Amino acid sequence: MDKILLGHGSGGSMMHALIAEHFAPAFQLETLMDAAVVENLNPGRIAVTTDSYVVSPLFFPGGNIGELAVNGTVNDLAMVGARPLYLTAGFIIEEGFPFDDLRRIVSSMAEASEKAGVKIIAGDTKVVDKGKGDGIFINTAGVGVVPDGVQLSASRIQAGDKIIISGRIGNHGVAVMAERNGLRFEPPVLSDTAPLNSLVELMLESADGIRVMRDPTRGGVATVLKEFAVESGLCMIVEKWLIPVASGVRGACDLLGIDPLYVANEGILLAVVRPDVAEYLVKVMKRHPLGEHSAVIGQVEESPAETVLLTTEIGGRRVLEMLQGEQLPRIC
Amino acid sequence: MDKILLGHGSGGSMMHALIAEHFAPAFQLETLMDAAVVENLNPGRIAVTTDSYVVSPLFFPGGNIGELAVNGTVNDLAMVGARPLYLTAGFIIEEGFPFDDLRRIVSSMAEASEKAGVKIIAGDTKVVDKGKGDGIFINTAGVGVVPDGVQLSASRIQAGDKIIISGRIGNHGVAVMAERNGLRFEPPVLSDTAPLNSLVELMLESADGIRVMRDPTRGGVATVLKEFAVESGLCMIVEKWLIPVASGVRGACDLLGIDPLYVANEGILLAVVRPDVAEYLVKVMKRHPLGEHSAVIGQVEESPAETVLLTTEIGGRRVLEMLQGEQLPRIC
Repeated sequence: MDKILLGHGSGGSMMHALIAEHFAPAFQLETLMDAAVVENLNPGRIAVTTDSYVVSPLFFPGGNIGELAVNGTVNDLAMVGARPLYLTAGFIIEEGFPFDDLRRIVSSMAEASEKAGVKIIAGDTKVVDKGKGDGIFINTAGVGVVPDGVQLSASRIQAGDKIIISGRIGNHGVAVMAERNGLRFEPPVLSDTAPLNSLVELMLESADGIRVMRDPTRGGVATVLKEFAVESGLCMIVEKWLIPVASGVRGACDLLGIDPLYVANEGILLAVVRPDVAEYLVKVMKRHPLGEHSAVIGQVEESPAETVLLTTEIGGRRVLEMLQGEQLPRIC
Repeated sequence: MDKILLGHGSGGSMMHALIAEHFAPAFQLETLMDAAVVENLNPGRIAVTTDSYVVSPLFFPGGNIGELAVNGTVNDLAMVGARPLYLTAGFIIEEGFPFDDLRRIVSSMAEASEKAGVKIIAGDTKVVDKGKGDGIFINTAGVGVVPDGVQLSASRIQAGDKIIISGRIGNHGVAVMAERNGLRFEPPVLSDTAPLNSLVELMLESADGIRVMRDPTRGGVATVLKEFAVESGLCMIVEKWLIPVASGVRGACDLLGIDPLYVANEGILLAVVRPDVAEYLVKVMKRHPLGEHSAVIGQVEESPAETVLLTTEIGGRRVLEMLQGEQLPRIC
């Protein structure tokens, strides 16, 4: 049997076999019941999040949908300062999907979970008729614990704060777009998909004064900055030449006619921090493998309210809005 | 704008508007951040579950995909004895999906959450190109608290235990199948979709000695009984004439050539309980609107191991296996 059949989503014997032979060993599931019970979460506060992944193609330079589904949800938890602990995984598989691809995806998810230090504890499999899906869609939901005293929110941003980015932008979107269009760059542009929780933990341990963090996925850096501006009522001013972009990504964006500020990322974060800790934080972040290219890219001002301004090399300023319409569908 | 466009899944301004205008008011979301932080869960142990819903058609007699997505996940939590508290909602919408249908579904989800006493606290929206999905798929994940002392597991089943069912079987599957095939029954067969948590709470408060509970959704009653048999290593013997089936469902199943024991349910549960509390529990359950048709339907014996036996009216016995292959795809 090398393809997924409708019976694999039946709830009956074929689904039991699929779970027992593929999902349970990969994720070291302790129970095959519909809900998992975990002991002693020891909270305080818990963080809960969900994301569905519909990226096309499923495999792209630097990653695949499985890895993305783990890292993306880990990152959503990390962005509120939570320590990610548990994930659930919901699969919607199109009839006829190759078993080999499922195996590769599931094993990527297991590896990514291990790397991020989270455990997949519950799952679900549905199979839809051929032509009613697109290979595989994966939903992951995540649960984490927010340490005492951690309170991250754009409403805490103040004028004078500094804006930090943790790495080079645009890699994920360009990698997916290249794969979709059969473009090959030399060297290849790889997705930056990665779990940010250890970087976030390091940042939170190293300094008070982190107001908010967010990972610029769909909509890119510009959209997150606009969210910060709207939610704080303040103005985000960023300097274009301080925003790190790998030369391959810059070239690809020029070629494709897109702005890297609107391209999705899957392994970097934006943080707004108190001005006195900004340089120190960047120094700390640079010691982390995912923070090597960290930089202060701008600052917060009182006005114009709810606005993002981009300062260009030649002294011009332009207003950045959120992504309008859709630049690149199904990027994650 | 009356249809969903790819831009509604962009992460940019259209998606923000969709969330702000539709999801946030319906679910009374307190934050539009990717992860929600909830205070003071006050555990012990938490239960976590997930399910994706791909039912076709989206609207069927007695319910729709939205209501189903809330109740199904509430029930998965309730089945491990958890008090359901929080849900996440992940939408995968096909480009061109009517806004009116989305509104109806979202408002059903809000109503169902209210009724079940849970709160939808985080969500995600993806839009896939026309022809790459099927209207809408919904994933819900759920978090609940398991009260101290509650420990439900099929491994706790013992020979001599009684098997209880909480209601009449087969309604959901027959309702969906009828709608799909354009059949009209008079009176119509309605889906039994309902949140079982208040019934479960009543049962747990009323008696010790509940070994395990499970809701017979995909795969039906026969599949759950087989799971109980395999997980406990014991034999489940049920009497066919004690299993409640509404006459409309029985007639429809005869007509369609299917066995109600393998048809999906969305608002009933099977429980295995200590023999001395069985009759009392059924009496208590009958007082609950969802337990009106509760009945003891059989018992547990030592052997044959890992086997389900169905005793028929004329004294015969037949072995029930799990659902083989797929009887009715996309039932939930």
